[in-house]
Amino acid sequence: MSDDKLTPLRARIDAIDAQLLDLLNQRAKVAQEVGHVKAETNAPIFRPERELQVLRNVAERNPGPLIDSDLQTIFREIMSACRALERRMTVAYLGPEGTFSEAAVYSHFGHAVNGLPCASIDEVFRATEAGVADFGVVPVENSTEGAVNRTLDLLLQTTLTISGEVSLPVHHCLMTASGSMDGIRRICAHPQALAQCQGWLNQHYPALARDPVSSNGEAARIAAQDHAVAAIAGEMAGEKHGLRVVNSQVQDDPHNRTRFGVIGRLRTAPSGHDRTALVLSVANKAGAVYNLLAPLARNGVSMTRFESRPARMGTWEYYFYVDVEGHADETRMATALTELKENAAFFKVLGSYPCSL
Amino acid sequence: MSDDKLTPLRARIDAIDAQLLDLLNQRAKVAQEVGHVKAETNAPIFRPERELQVLRNVAERNPGPLIDSDLQTIFREIMSACRALERRMTVAYLGPEGTFSEAAVYSHFGHAVNGLPCASIDEVFRATEAGVADFGVVPVENSTEGAVNRTLDLLLQTTLTISGEVSLPVHHCLMTASGSMDGIRRICAHPQALAQCQGWLNQHYPALARDPVSSNGEAARIAAQDHAVAAIAGEMAGEKHGLRVVNSQVQDDPHNRTRFGVIGRLRTAPSGHDRTALVLSVANKAGAVYNLLAPLARNGVSMTRFESRPARMGTWEYYFYVDVEGHADETRMATALTELKENAAFFKVLGSYPCSL
Repeated sequence: MSDDKLTPLRARIDAIDAQLLDLLNQRAKVAQEVGHVKAETNAPIFRPERELQVLRNVAERNPGPLIDSDLQTIFREIMSACRALERRMTVAYLGPEGTFSEAAVYSHFGHAVNGLPCASIDEVFRATEAGVADFGVVPVENSTEGAVNRTLDLLLQTTLTISGEVSLPVHHCLMTASGSMDGIRRICAHPQALAQCQGWLNQHYPALARDPVSSNGEAARIAAQDHAVAAIAGEMAGEKHGLRVVNSQVQDDPHNRTRFGVIGRLRTAPSGHDRTALVLSVANKAGAVYNLLAPLARNGVSMTRFESRPARMGTWEYYFYVDVEGHADETRMATALTELKENAAFFKVLGSYPCSL
Repeated sequence: MSDDKLTPLRARIDAIDAQLLDLLNQRAKVAQEVGHVKAETNAPIFRPERELQVLRNVAERNPGPLIDSDLQTIFREIMSACRALERRMTVAYLGPEGTFSEAAVYSHFGHAVNGLPCASIDEVFRATEAGVADFGVVPVENSTEGAVNRTLDLLLQTTLTISGEVSLPVHHCLMTASGSMDGIRRICAHPQALAQCQGWLNQHYPALARDPVSSNGEAARIAAQDHAVAAIAGEMAGEKHGLRVVNSQVQDDPHNRTRFGVIGRLRTAPSGHDRTALVLSVANKAGAVYNLLAPLARNGVSMTRFESRPARMGTWEYYFYVDVEGHADETRMATALTELKENAAFFKVLGSYPCSL
């Protein structure tokens, strides 16, 4: 039938594939030469700033019809395969296999790496510090559960630096013990989750009370015990408490995300679109935090995240985790950081890294 | 320093990338023409047998230095991106997101599809039968937990056929409540898991008793309660019961795998290296099963899997799930199937599909 028309088209695709195969191996040979040059000077195999520049270029120069993000997925795998010819890197992550953290590894490094699942966030740090792994990938922030405290505590002490970030989409589900909304009188969730699902809830369940609780995980726990309660949470939390999904994807913004940090011994060079993560502390007196941050504003450095965390030990009451736009090697950032350091009782640059796509 | 040497090499890589970008979009344009031809005749967008042929060709013709499997990952994404220009397919899987099932989806279809997480295996079937999803991906067999019974039961009744298989590596861990082996007196696991870890256990814990139990999940449950017990199980099972990993990857064979089936309305054409899945039943009398299978041997069709499952309803005591080598459209297989059908009280072809790489 249509095979008469398809056969010549398939032959054209096969011819293009033969050219692709040839070009990809040409690229691999040049990458091997790069590897030899790097080996002479002990330069790092993985240059995230360079790989992100390649991915940004691909999107900029893409004439279509391929979609930018699909092309970037292809080029990420091409770079991963070429890099693996220099050496196949090992990347530690919070296991088990088949989790979001593993997905974060492959979305950052491509598939041509060895994943090393670890039983805890502590172990990811240990494996990477000990050199068993070249890099580690750890969760930093869930969109509604907030910061991952264990990661923040370990970042404070580690000798490793952050060399990249990965953010993966995450969906909120409406869940109950029965899987139906019969007999449900209120909906529990973290206030941020309730806010993120407001439009959807107004449309579908305008009459039900909304009850803010400390976390979405807590909401799931309550819904498992009180059958008049529905929870909004990630499916993982629901599954943990034996809940059933009534509706998946109830958040108004489909771009809800979880962030991961890539840790290692690598210090990245500026890519032109970078972020720097800092931890600071000050003596506890009025206006101290405001004064502390003044150097950023004065030097025109934008803050993209500010988070405080009670100190579990030592002299300071709070640590402040601050993300700013730019690379620590850029002039005005370097000036701002020097001034910040002078005012702070505790000061640590966790790392500068290219922003994820 | 080494940048003098690296700059010209990077320029060569950039030039190759520009050619790749051009070729990839040329390929996409031809794929769009293929889409128009297919649309005229309502031909399927996804042709797994064709995609697997492309992937096998790539490996056969690869002159190196790129590794075959890395190249296949790249080409899978290329085909996925081109296919998405015809239409971005939806694939249902057993959620939540970030699980093995989701990984199975992307390893089969590439990343340019929409994943649809479902709360149960039943829902994956329903979503696919209802046409909400183009395909569904369901677990069929765990290497040590054995068949996934719910999937087998649903396959018996569904109007869908199996159009592909995915197999993913899975690792056994030695786990205890404390994370150490202090005070441990015996090791529990499914007998198959104990067998698979025999060499490792002989080397590391020759003195500890080994206690076969019904499943690795059950072993994890016991170890959580009895602190003189260590369990061998997947990390997921351990995490569910709050166990800590003492050693990951204790199986002797690193190629332990979990199998998934791809279900849909698509009937694949022969790829040259296929498998056919059947369900059969016979009246319960001596020699019946032996006689039932005779047509396979007579026609030179190899059986790769044979599994019996008690019938939960109806006339027959057992259903036999049989995998054979070859495609149902091949002559000798067609002959064998016709003969099988004549002897069987129940007979259903679940599908013919290309063997995974």
